[in-house]
Amino acid sequence: MQKIFCPQLLQALVDSNQESFAGYGMDSYCAQAAEKIKEACHCPEAEIFFLSGGTQTNQVVIDSLLTSYEGVIAAETGHVSTHEAGAIEFTGHKVVTLPSHQGKIQAAELAAYVDNFYHDGNHDHMVFPGMVYISHPTEYGTLYTKEELTVISDVCRQYQLPLFIDGARLGYGLAAKETEVDLPTIAALSDVFYIGGTKMGAFIGEAVVFTKQNTPKHFVTTVKQHGALLAKGWLIGVQFDRFFTDNLYFEIGEHAIKMAEQLKDILREKGYRFYLESPTNQQFIIIENAKLATLGEVLAYSFWEKYDDTHTVIRLATSWSTTQEDIDKLREVL
Amino acid sequence: MQKIFCPQLLQALVDSNQESFAGYGMDSYCAQAAEKIKEACHCPEAEIFFLSGGTQTNQVVIDSLLTSYEGVIAAETGHVSTHEAGAIEFTGHKVVTLPSHQGKIQAAELAAYVDNFYHDGNHDHMVFPGMVYISHPTEYGTLYTKEELTVISDVCRQYQLPLFIDGARLGYGLAAKETEVDLPTIAALSDVFYIGGTKMGAFIGEAVVFTKQNTPKHFVTTVKQHGALLAKGWLIGVQFDRFFTDNLYFEIGEHAIKMAEQLKDILREKGYRFYLESPTNQQFIIIENAKLATLGEVLAYSFWEKYDDTHTVIRLATSWSTTQEDIDKLREVL
Amino acid sequence: MQKIFCPQLLQALVDSNQESFAGYGMDSYCAQAAEKIKEACHCPEAEIFFLSGGTQTNQVVIDSLLTSYEGVIAAETGHVSTHEAGAIEFTGHKVVTLPSHQGKIQAAELAAYVDNFYHDGNHDHMVFPGMVYISHPTEYGTLYTKEELTVISDVCRQYQLPLFIDGARLGYGLAAKETEVDLPTIAALSDVFYIGGTKMGAFIGEAVVFTKQNTPKHFVTTVKQHGALLAKGWLIGVQFDRFFTDNLYFEIGEHAIKMAEQLKDILREKGYRFYLESPTNQQFIIIENAKLATLGEVLAYSFWEKYDDTHTVIRLATSWSTTQEDIDKLREVL
Amino acid sequence: MQKIFCPQLLQALVDSNQESFAGYGMDSYCAQAAEKIKEACHCPEAEIFFLSGGTQTNQVVIDSLLTSYEGVIAAETGHVSTHEAGAIEFTGHKVVTLPSHQGKIQAAELAAYVDNFYHDGNHDHMVFPGMVYISHPTEYGTLYTKEELTVISDVCRQYQLPLFIDGARLGYGLAAKETEVDLPTIAALSDVFYIGGTKMGAFIGEAVVFTKQNTPKHFVTTVKQHGALLAKGWLIGVQFDRFFTDNLYFEIGEHAIKMAEQLKDILREKGYRFYLESPTNQQFIIIENAKLATLGEVLAYSFWEKYDDTHTVIRLATSWSTTQEDIDKLREVL
Repeated sequence: MQKIFCPQLLQALVDSNQESFAGYGMDSYCAQAAEKIKEACHCPEAEIFFLSGGTQTNQVVIDSLLTSYEGVIAAETGHVSTHEAGAIEFTGHKVVTLPSHQGKIQAAELAAYVDNFYHDGNHDHMVFPGMVYISHPTEYGTLYTKEELTVISDVCRQYQLPLFIDGARLGYGLAAKETEVDLPTIAALSDVFYIGGTKMGAFIGEAVVFTKQNTPKHFVTTVKQHGALLAKGWLIGVQFDRFFTDNLYFEIGEHAIKMAEQLKDILREKGYRFYLESPTNQQFIIIENAKLATLGEVLAYSFWEKYDDTHTVIRLATSWSTTQEDIDKLREVL
Repeated sequence: MQKIFCPQLLQALVDSNQESFAGYGMDSYCAQAAEKIKEACHCPEAEIFFLSGGTQTNQVVIDSLLTSYEGVIAAETGHVSTHEAGAIEFTGHKVVTLPSHQGKIQAAELAAYVDNFYHDGNHDHMVFPGMVYISHPTEYGTLYTKEELTVISDVCRQYQLPLFIDGARLGYGLAAKETEVDLPTIAALSDVFYIGGTKMGAFIGEAVVFTKQNTPKHFVTTVKQHGALLAKGWLIGVQFDRFFTDNLYFEIGEHAIKMAEQLKDILREKGYRFYLESPTNQQFIIIENAKLATLGEVLAYSFWEKYDDTHTVIRLATSWSTTQEDIDKLREVL
Repeated sequence: MQKIFCPQLLQALVDSNQESFAGYGMDSYCAQAAEKIKEACHCPEAEIFFLSGGTQTNQVVIDSLLTSYEGVIAAETGHVSTHEAGAIEFTGHKVVTLPSHQGKIQAAELAAYVDNFYHDGNHDHMVFPGMVYISHPTEYGTLYTKEELTVISDVCRQYQLPLFIDGARLGYGLAAKETEVDLPTIAALSDVFYIGGTKMGAFIGEAVVFTKQNTPKHFVTTVKQHGALLAKGWLIGVQFDRFFTDNLYFEIGEHAIKMAEQLKDILREKGYRFYLESPTNQQFIIIENAKLATLGEVLAYSFWEKYDDTHTVIRLATSWSTTQEDIDKLREVL
Repeated sequence: MQKIFCPQLLQALVDSNQESFAGYGMDSYCAQAAEKIKEACHCPEAEIFFLSGGTQTNQVVIDSLLTSYEGVIAAETGHVSTHEAGAIEFTGHKVVTLPSHQGKIQAAELAAYVDNFYHDGNHDHMVFPGMVYISHPTEYGTLYTKEELTVISDVCRQYQLPLFIDGARLGYGLAAKETEVDLPTIAALSDVFYIGGTKMGAFIGEAVVFTKQNTPKHFVTTVKQHGALLAKGWLIGVQFDRFFTDNLYFEIGEHAIKMAEQLKDILREKGYRFYLESPTNQQFIIIENAKLATLGEVLAYSFWEKYDDTHTVIRLATSWSTTQEDIDKLREVL
């Protein structure tokens, strides 16, 4: 079950409801939100666009950056590779996968792939690598270190491949303990990224940031063509304006991480088996299938993937809406 | 400039914000809203899905119903033919156009088109007609009479072409003076239609209604693939549940029509030249280009289309948010 | 019924069959043919590619030149608009149609369309004009004069729209009486065009000529991706090399025109009713439906289109294979 | 360098060149060829269509069988996964890959994949498996045994997934020593397959065989839409008619296999290192990079793939055109 909308965002919407706005994202709230985002990213020349949902955002951004003979490189476990019902292929592009190392790609394997491609005598009959997609946090909650991101960014630059960072849960990634990756780092090292709103307490909304004066030509028309242009764009502008006022976005992230750290302690204490070590709000544990039903009576979890014939990996997540009481209750029932 | 969100819908959102919900439209509000819609349509076996925006809805519904060699038949002036940046073609389908008669297609011309197609010796090398798309009200605010809709529906049935009715402004059409077309009629005569929410005061949202137990297989996956599946679907469910409680949807329509009738009177009194006779909330008048700038200082209008080298057709619209004061003020300034 | 392959081309294939060739069009015959074509076009910097069939060629060329938000402008009667089973839309692009004047578009209407587009306040939500497609001869056998082509070319240049000329029957157009349009003219005025082989006596094959050093990047990969890259490309290279040796291509055209002129005389003498005046190898006449069956016993014709409820337009065509005897026989039976 | 066209096929073309034919594959040669193929397959209800080239054939067949939310399952090394420049994704579908075991997929892994898919709680947000694609011989020249094919076919039937067999080099596979897989087996176990012509000595052409009265509706229109409908279809009909007269197709295969067996002996004698054991006309050997240049002076080989940093896998192939002299010469120079 999903949780309620973040009350501050709802309040912002209520407060804005006395005014009139231009449509299609041309309103003052979208403009204000864009300014605040540019400032938070230390990226004064960025261009920002608001879309609705991770799959839609990935689909539109990737298709707008690739020519028809190009594909996008992503981890085998990347959202675009697994849980978008083929949204990328739907627009005509192949998702070329690299091995996933706890959800992350490795710069050396990326470089090797591209290098081998150009040395492959058959490459004119193959899909050209056109850009690189990574998620931060990854689909497994893991984070790239600043060094890892930097090396990947360098490889992308060397091979002239735009780097696109999916930040569906970016706020949680920025707030994790011991991460050196902040918003300006994300903006500096990528060519385009998005700041997730939906998973951070918004009703709906992701902010796409083109960081290098590289917005594709006529991007709004492309968005419209992909069925992604919201008439009442300020719905998202209001929320992102509130997110980036008084550090709300970062506080939400910090809160969820605080709760997640407690959750991890509880799971450890109770002897649960972790699928991997995740420093952010999503935790993945391995449960015996026989115990899934009972567990489901006391705990809201998501099926993640099959582990083996008798075990399943499930996902537990904290978010902006997890309360201390929720955590305390979990301590009792687990 | 767009107007504010309908306050009752905003309140419904505030009220619902204490609860938890399932995602992707599987929540109780979407379920409730669906039941209310089925009842209002007198269509107990209908299946309802909530999407975001007219272009997206048209794109997903049409693509889900057509095979690759089929195209959709629409008026030359249809939304899918003109203002969707090629969203339909983007999914691989041709929009085959019929002459527009004040925004409407004619059953006889539709039948002639399909009949000629099957008698055309070359038709195996042509796009097959796969379905019919009409808007009610049309893009010009005009309405089909019950007889006109019935005949079109009969032709569609005869040629086994699903009939899809775009109801972006349906509420205004249902409330127009002297229309015999009500919601049950729309449901009975079509194979699928959508009830527009965004233009009726919602933040976002359209309700797609498959009326004949004809929901395409795995429709949710198709929606996801098209980037159209909202994570927090209850955002739309809450609004449609409120729309269809205590006749709010119909009242909104009636209010806008009442304002529109006054607006028409004012325009007539002041000697403005109508482009055509529209019985709904959108009014189209012809203005000398030289006067557009001055007019724009006192009136919020939309550019519609070029009329001739010295005149433009502009669009004025009332909506759920037009107040009596707005109308009174218009009387003064026009 | 189609006619036999042009014997000189078959002989060229037999003669070449003792050698070995590189695949995918990288062979010496394709190279030779390309040189001869460049020379015949007076276009030393042209780049030539060999594809198979008009629909495929149009589909690949158009898709390779357009971005996703762009469509192609063509006559309502253009091949891409009517008889390609939606091949252009299949690749995601809209075919925007202009009125057909005996099969031809008019430069003034083209300019007006593009000009109105950029002055349309809604154009960000519409398909951008991306290129212009015309056929020479047109689908109705008519020809553009040199002046007409020049003006169209100028308009295209003014609006930065690549001009693509479909030359499926180009040889017949070049040989028509009183035309000033020769191959160098076609090459100079267009950005890309193709020289039809299939309808000029080849087994298969069209030669695409990019005239302005404007071959899209990685065009061969795009061709492969569209399923259009022939493994044994020299099959087409051999034929075009023979076409452009000793003026065979032009002689074929002249022969067919000579036969066509006789056919026109016969039809005129016998009192047949012409649908329009065509100076090339295709002739369109109007026949009473009641007489179609009887006519079909003595004459091989193609259904073209319905004229009215009691008449049909049929198409008669001469080609490289029409003999004097065929014409003489026609004189007797018609 | 490719070899010359098979002389018997060229002769058949010359012989047929006195006649006239219907276009688009509706001619008597295509009909005759279809009858002979049905007979050779022991499949009287099969429907046959002629296309041009492996990539095109795979693209058209797969797209015609899948709905938009479905993908095709293939080996990681399958032609559709690697060397078609994304032709499958171009039509909107994902290629879901299974591990390649010397080029082959395993029925157990296929069943596990599909089974896991339907047990995956997230599968509504994933690409549905829609059909299975295998090549016989595989891209590595290896062959499925009759048992392996049968089990795969059974799994496909169990999960209602059409099985499509790419027979680009089928003739060589049928002629391999010790194979029990004949043409009737291929037809019986698959839902659709194609008999490769281009790699078996034809100028161009593949014969698609729908074996279970399962030709997609309006397949010819779909072919046209994909730019794959040949105007002069009898070009391919003549060749396949000749192929299946007097067992020419099978003799060509047997000849190439006989030459391949000798080639293998030579390579073994000379101490070359095989990448794997291939029973058909393609042989894959591992060569030190430093020796590639010298080898290239005496031997026509294709780059296949990188083996490691100092070695490359190259491909040597015999075909219908390999002569005993060619083999004898190889024995000297290697």
